[in-house]
Amino acid sequence: MAFGWIDEQAELRRRAGLVRTLRPRPADSPLLDLASNDYLGLAHHPEVTEGAAAAARTWGGGSTGSRLVTGTTELHTELERELADFCGFEAALVFSSGYAANLAAVTTLGPHGSLIVSDALNHASLIDGCRLARGTTQVVGHAAPDAVRKALGTHEGPAVVVCDTVFSVDGDAAPLAALAEACRERGAGLLVDDAHGLGVLGDGGRGAPQAAGLAGADDVVVTVTLSKSLGSQGGAVLGPARVVDHLVNAARTFIFDTGLAPAAAGAALAALRLLRREPERAERARAVAAELHARLTAAGLEAVRPDAAVVSVRAPSPEGAVRWAAACRAAGLAVGCFRPPSVPDGVSRLRLTARADLSGAEIERAVQVIGETRP
Amino acid sequence: MAFGWIDEQAELRRRAGLVRTLRPRPADSPLLDLASNDYLGLAHHPEVTEGAAAAARTWGGGSTGSRLVTGTTELHTELERELADFCGFEAALVFSSGYAANLAAVTTLGPHGSLIVSDALNHASLIDGCRLARGTTQVVGHAAPDAVRKALGTHEGPAVVVCDTVFSVDGDAAPLAALAEACRERGAGLLVDDAHGLGVLGDGGRGAPQAAGLAGADDVVVTVTLSKSLGSQGGAVLGPARVVDHLVNAARTFIFDTGLAPAAAGAALAALRLLRREPERAERARAVAAELHARLTAAGLEAVRPDAAVVSVRAPSPEGAVRWAAACRAAGLAVGCFRPPSVPDGVSRLRLTARADLSGAEIERAVQVIGETRP
Repeated sequence: MAFGWIDEQAELRRRAGLVRTLRPRPADSPLLDLASNDYLGLAHHPEVTEGAAAAARTWGGGSTGSRLVTGTTELHTELERELADFCGFEAALVFSSGYAANLAAVTTLGPHGSLIVSDALNHASLIDGCRLARGTTQVVGHAAPDAVRKALGTHEGPAVVVCDTVFSVDGDAAPLAALAEACRERGAGLLVDDAHGLGVLGDGGRGAPQAAGLAGADDVVVTVTLSKSLGSQGGAVLGPARVVDHLVNAARTFIFDTGLAPAAAGAALAALRLLRREPERAERARAVAAELHARLTAAGLEAVRPDAAVVSVRAPSPEGAVRWAAACRAAGLAVGCFRPPSVPDGVSRLRLTARADLSGAEIERAVQVIGETRP
Repeated sequence: MAFGWIDEQAELRRRAGLVRTLRPRPADSPLLDLASNDYLGLAHHPEVTEGAAAAARTWGGGSTGSRLVTGTTELHTELERELADFCGFEAALVFSSGYAANLAAVTTLGPHGSLIVSDALNHASLIDGCRLARGTTQVVGHAAPDAVRKALGTHEGPAVVVCDTVFSVDGDAAPLAALAEACRERGAGLLVDDAHGLGVLGDGGRGAPQAAGLAGADDVVVTVTLSKSLGSQGGAVLGPARVVDHLVNAARTFIFDTGLAPAAAGAALAALRLLRREPERAERARAVAAELHARLTAAGLEAVRPDAAVVSVRAPSPEGAVRWAAACRAAGLAVGCFRPPSVPDGVSRLRLTARADLSGAEIERAVQVIGETRP
């Protein structure tokens, strides 16, 4: 049978205890959420949901076409202008997802004849971007500016260094300033994915590049997502206007994709304005992460010191991580569970997100449940 | 300077007359729209926009995480169940875009050691899927079952034939029944992208596979988009439950992407229910396309006979196509303009979409403007 070979792979997964299943959640989930990427707790904020609703009413349920045909509304342009302004870059371009934004940025900034230097622990979307790009990719060790310097060597022609600003799995930050220095020594561009930095790091959540003094630099391009701190959906590329123009003309996931739905643009814009008005939300997310880490460590758990709002806790094994997460869930706590093959280093862990709107009592309860359910 | 090489490419584009620019549209555009992919005119239907608004209020501005962590709501499951049921397949899986759905389907159904046979005029997202897949891709001539048969040859191991059901540029349909026959002779799977068929072809808009008698076949997988006939955003893969389970476990654009925003799921679900209640919308879209084609031809224009709701009109040159579309716009008519490098065959054309809600007077006006502005 045509797709019969799939059954063999399913059987292998079953034997390895690696079967993934979807768990639909109700609207009124009783679980305490430390699993989502809703870092600022804005996804359910009435201004954000009303931003979505109003945009759908005014602009329609969808954008109706490619951004180059009918899919660019004035709402998209407004969001792009405010995003660029907030993060301190000249221009911005919005995509239907952060994944699409990363594919676009890597493929267009890593053309034929170019060198792409990629961190070993980069997100799947950056890796797929490298695979699709016509340039040559060299993977370097994690968060290692000297390795980047060596990889860039004396390459002639365009070169770009590609890196997450905050790594999703362990929540550690990349050494951005040192990476930028290495790039500048060699005339290479720096492309960073600030998916987990926007809204959490930098002044009032302006992101990791701003915190590292790189906002507005003409050799730095940043991708962000609208689906984490901004509680919506979509992604964006921020950078010099020349780079954004280049993407408009060359990025396949921009040209051949339907524009972001108005509701998602409206929700992201509302969240961005809220964050601008309430910059303390970013600081609060970092403080919650620090408190979570301190309490988990005090409870004898092995947690990685968080650089942003992700707190990673080591689990003994893939099966142990799955059992641990399930036990947390049974006790009313939703946590993330990362294990192979999602984690390239083969280390299984619980992944906790430090939402800015978690109360002291909620943090205490979370730490208690995690400690008591430890495998 | 790091991204200085981009200026050279911009200059080349400028000289070739191939610069693309964004044209943000206002909410109350006075243009008559024959450019969008809103085939059924549902993007602004109050039930659809209220579906988006209600979903945002109930479920939040975003889905808050990967579909495997917190990004699957009961609304996503409801949409998947109704989509699968409507199109006649066992299961469905919703993605943040049709592009992401195509990348997922091709990469997971074209594993290492497999053969992927791809139509020469397939959509960019299918082509990128082939590039990312670990299998070997063989490109065959357009809409040629015999070429497919030959390419499949005596390949051992998994094989999949990948094809659009309706080609976006010329609006022509693939010979699905003949392709399925070729696949079955060789034990290959058939993967088709019904982005431009859903809502237009088949009984009540159930899509091209249903029209070809392939709905529910265990060797057929279909991708659709929620951003065209359904007036929203997102994509889906429909097929046997074993294939959908495989995607949940293996598709990177599913596992590592944030789930579709609730508003988009809500809008698509409302549109789907509307289409089920008013099946004549599909027939009307086809009738409008036939009428557009007949009138354009009668006016002496070279238009391709439409198989769905896209009507393609030949332009004399890339510059001629751009001038023609601009003249239409100046006369109050929005039309699509396809030219290299978006069109692999190098032929420039105007692309008209036959919305089901166009009135007779609007069709007449469109044909008149196109005829009068002919370069």
